[in-house]
Amino acid sequence: MTSKTVAELLSQDVTLQDVSIKGWVRTFRAKRFIALNDGSTINNIQCVVDFENFDEAILKRITTGAAIHVKGELVESQGKGQSVEIVVKTLDILGDSDPETYPIQPKKHSFEFLRENAHLRTRTNTFSAVMRLRSSLSFAIHKYFNENGFNYMHTPIVTGSDAEGAGEMFKVTTLEAKNPPLNEDGTVNYKEDFFGKETNLTVSGQLEAETYAMSLGKVYTFGPTFRAENSNTTRHLAEFWMIEPEVAFMDLAGNMDLAEDFMKSVLSYILENNKEDLEFLDNRLQKEEEKLPQAQRSDMSLIEKIKFVVDNNFKRVSYTEAIDILRNCKPNKKKKFNYLINEWGADLQSEHERFLVEKHFKCPVILFDYPANIKAFYMRLNEPDAEGRETVRAMDILFPGIGEMVGGSQREERLEVLKEKMKALNIDEEELWWYLDLRKYGTAVHSGFGLGFERLVMFATGMSNIRDVIPYPRTPQNAEF
Amino acid sequence: MTSKTVAELLSQDVTLQDVSIKGWVRTFRAKRFIALNDGSTINNIQCVVDFENFDEAILKRITTGAAIHVKGELVESQGKGQSVEIVVKTLDILGDSDPETYPIQPKKHSFEFLRENAHLRTRTNTFSAVMRLRSSLSFAIHKYFNENGFNYMHTPIVTGSDAEGAGEMFKVTTLEAKNPPLNEDGTVNYKEDFFGKETNLTVSGQLEAETYAMSLGKVYTFGPTFRAENSNTTRHLAEFWMIEPEVAFMDLAGNMDLAEDFMKSVLSYILENNKEDLEFLDNRLQKEEEKLPQAQRSDMSLIEKIKFVVDNNFKRVSYTEAIDILRNCKPNKKKKFNYLINEWGADLQSEHERFLVEKHFKCPVILFDYPANIKAFYMRLNEPDAEGRETVRAMDILFPGIGEMVGGSQREERLEVLKEKMKALNIDEEELWWYLDLRKYGTAVHSGFGLGFERLVMFATGMSNIRDVIPYPRTPQNAEF
Repeated sequence: MTSKTVAELLSQDVTLQDVSIKGWVRTFRAKRFIALNDGSTINNIQCVVDFENFDEAILKRITTGAAIHVKGELVESQGKGQSVEIVVKTLDILGDSDPETYPIQPKKHSFEFLRENAHLRTRTNTFSAVMRLRSSLSFAIHKYFNENGFNYMHTPIVTGSDAEGAGEMFKVTTLEAKNPPLNEDGTVNYKEDFFGKETNLTVSGQLEAETYAMSLGKVYTFGPTFRAENSNTTRHLAEFWMIEPEVAFMDLAGNMDLAEDFMKSVLSYILENNKEDLEFLDNRLQKEEEKLPQAQRSDMSLIEKIKFVVDNNFKRVSYTEAIDILRNCKPNKKKKFNYLINEWGADLQSEHERFLVEKHFKCPVILFDYPANIKAFYMRLNEPDAEGRETVRAMDILFPGIGEMVGGSQREERLEVLKEKMKALNIDEEELWWYLDLRKYGTAVHSGFGLGFERLVMFATGMSNIRDVIPYPRTPQNAEF
Repeated sequence: MTSKTVAELLSQDVTLQDVSIKGWVRTFRAKRFIALNDGSTINNIQCVVDFENFDEAILKRITTGAAIHVKGELVESQGKGQSVEIVVKTLDILGDSDPETYPIQPKKHSFEFLRENAHLRTRTNTFSAVMRLRSSLSFAIHKYFNENGFNYMHTPIVTGSDAEGAGEMFKVTTLEAKNPPLNEDGTVNYKEDFFGKETNLTVSGQLEAETYAMSLGKVYTFGPTFRAENSNTTRHLAEFWMIEPEVAFMDLAGNMDLAEDFMKSVLSYILENNKEDLEFLDNRLQKEEEKLPQAQRSDMSLIEKIKFVVDNNFKRVSYTEAIDILRNCKPNKKKKFNYLINEWGADLQSEHERFLVEKHFKCPVILFDYPANIKAFYMRLNEPDAEGRETVRAMDILFPGIGEMVGGSQREERLEVLKEKMKALNIDEEELWWYLDLRKYGTAVHSGFGLGFERLVMFATGMSNIRDVIPYPRTPQNAEF
C-alpha cells in the first residue's frame, strides 16, 4: 500500500479500500474530523477519527500544522462538501506543531504578516493556490513556445554590458568591498575582478535573444531580470522573471498576433487545468470586494476577467489615435488627470493607460507606433508621418487592472540607422559590436516582446501586491530568506 | 502565401505548389544550388536557381550568411540527399553578408574561434544542434515534473544568506565601489546597500525549495546558480543552470527512484523528438574519434550511450562497498591512481568515480550513504554502523564520461540533530531561523537532488567543453556578450 496524494484520492471513484496518506493537519474538529492537506490540491481530505479508540496523548498532538501519516478505508462521505473521506485505522504523528507558537493558525492572517512568514505562507489556501497557478502558468508558457517551434534560450544573468538602458543595475563583484584594488589614476581596477571587468545583473535578455533569433529563427527566454530601482510599490520588484520571445522575419503586426495568441493560450491553459484554485481565488476576491463601496467593485469576477481576455480580440490602437482619444476625453477636459494630455509626443502615464483600457475600450489594448524619442534605441524607425513626426514600431499591451503587461517592438535591422541612433544616445558601438554584427551579416526584419511574468500571475490570481505572487520577493531593504 | 519554415517544407509530401520561405544562405554552389537554413531544423532546403534568368548582380549577393526571401515551386528533388527542393521563381536579398569579412565560412572552424564569435556560432550545424537539444531537454524537464504533480518554483537569485556553503559567492551591491559608506568601526555599512544587508548570488535553491516541499509536497527549481570559483576547466562555469526537485515524505530510496526515472524520461524525450540533431552530433563525434588512437575511442556512439542509460538500471552501490572495490582494484594496487584509496572516509576523486563507472560497473552508478564529515550539514544522519562509523543519506549519480551528474540527499528532519550539526559547523541559527522552522512545525522525512543542467547537455550532445553547451559562458576573466 503506497501512499497517495490528496488529489489522487479525491478524484477516485472506487471506495472501500485501504489507503495510506501523509500530509499536514489543517484543522481538527470535534476530536473527530481531520482536514488533511498535502499541497497536491487546494482541497483537504477529511479523515474521520473514532476518538474512543485512540490514545488521548495522540489526539492532543493532532494540531494545525502537524505532519501525520494516516492509514484507513476510503469511503463515501457522510457529510457534505466532499465525495469521499477516510475512516482512520492507524495514525502516526510524523512531526508535531506546537499550537502555542505555530504562526499559521486556522484564521485569517494579513498578507503583511504572511510576507514575514513567507516560508510558511504556502501552507494557507490562498498562497498555495497562487503558487500552483504560478507553476501552471510557467508550464503553459513553455508548452506554448514548444508547440510553436520556438527554442528556449538561457541568456546570461551576469552581463558585462550595460547598454540596454532599461534601468538601474546591480553590480556583481568579488572585489574587496572596503579596499578594492585601484588603478594608478585612483579608479577601481576591475581587471582584478572575477570577470576582468565591471559586471552587472541583467535587465533584459533581449539583445542576446536577437543573436539566436537570427540563426535559430524563433527563440524565447524565461529567466530572472533585475532592476536596482528604489521603487517601493505594489507593482515593482528588484528581482523578477521575464519572458522574451524573439522571431526572425516577423514584423510588428506579426508580433502583435504572437503576443495576443500567446496570452490567450496560457490563460486558456489555466482555465482548463487549475479550475479549483481559480474558483477559490475568485471567491476570495469576491469576498474582498464586498467590503468595498459598490463603485469600486469590479464588473467582472476573476474567472470572468480571464475568460474575457481569452474570448475577445485585443483592440489595436496607434499612439496617435490614442492621443486623440485622450485629448478629447472627459477626464482630460475636466482636468481630472494629474498629467493633462495637450499634445502629440507626451509619454502616457498609468492614469491614461487605465482610462483607455478600463473606461474607453473596456478590453486589452495594444498601443503601437510610439514617438521615437520616448522609446529605446533598438526599435525600428518608421517613415515620418505627413506632419513629419517620427515614430517607432513599438507596441505595449495594456491589461485592465494591471496596466502594461507586454512591451515589444520590431527591431531596427538597418545598420546605418541603428548606428546613428546609438551615436545620438551615446551608446558605445564597441561594446555592442556583436549586436551590430547581426545587421552586418544577413540582417532581416525581426521582432519580439517582453512580458513581466509576475504581472501575468497577478492578473491570473487577482492578487494586488506583486510581493504576493513570487516565493521570496526582493525589494528595497528586503532580501529575507 | 505565408512563409513556411524549412522544417515544415521538408516534412511535406505534397509537391508542385507555390511556397515562400525566408532564411540564411549556407552555401551557393555552381551558381545554381542554394542550401538555405532558417534554424528550424539542422537540414537545409535546396533552392534551385536558373541563373540565366537572374540578374548577375543579385547572384553575386547570394553569399554564405546572407538573408534571402525565396518564392517558387516545391518539387520532388532530382538530386540525392533531399526529398524535395524549391525551383526558385523570385529571390530577394534581405540582408547581405560580405564574404570577405563574415566570420562563419562554409568550412570547419575551431570551437575556440566560435566561442569568440558566440553570437554567430548557432549559424553552424553543430551549435544549432546543441542549442536545439538544450531547448528540448529543458522542455522535457518541465514536462516530466508537470506530469508527475510537481510545482515549478522560482527560488531567489539574490540571497541574504550564505549558509549553504556550496561554494564561493559573488557579491551583489549598489554601493559605491571605491568609497563605500562605513560604520564607525570602519567596516562597510551594508545597511546603506540596496537590500539593507550583504547580499550574494545564490549557489543553490535547495533550502528555499524545502520550504515549499513542506507545504506543496512536490516542487522543483530550474534556474541559474553561481560559483565565484577560479576554476578554468572544461567542466566548470561561474554561471550555470540547475534543476533541484524536493519532495516531502520521500526517503533516500525514493530519491534514487525519482532521479533515475527522471533522467531516463528526459533522455527518452530527445531520442524521440531530436532524432536529426542527435544523428548529426553522433556523426560529428564519430569523425572526431577517428582521429584518436583506438584505445581512446568510445565503445559506444553518442546515441548508443543515451539509449544505454535509458534502457539499463543504474547500479546502486553504498560508499562503503565502493571503497572496498576501489581499495582492491588494480589501479589502486598498482598505484596508478593519483590519490590512493587506503581507508574508509576518503573523499572520492574524479579518477575513482570514473573507474567505478567506466571500468568496473560500465553503467551509471548511484553511490549512497557517504561519510558524514565529507558532506553538507543538512543531510540526514544514519545510525552509526557496526564499526561506529557515521554516514549520511546522501547520493551521487555518476555518468560515464561526465562524472557527477546528480547530487542529492534525504534531509535531516530532526530539529535537535540539525541544530547540533549547525553548531559544530559554526552555521548561524539565527540566519536560518526559517529553515529550522520547517523542523519545528510539522517536520517530516523529505529528500531532493540537484542536477547541473549543462552536465546533462554535455552528455546528451557529446560536447566535451561546458563552454560549448550554454549560449554565453561566464568563466574567470570572461563575461563577453
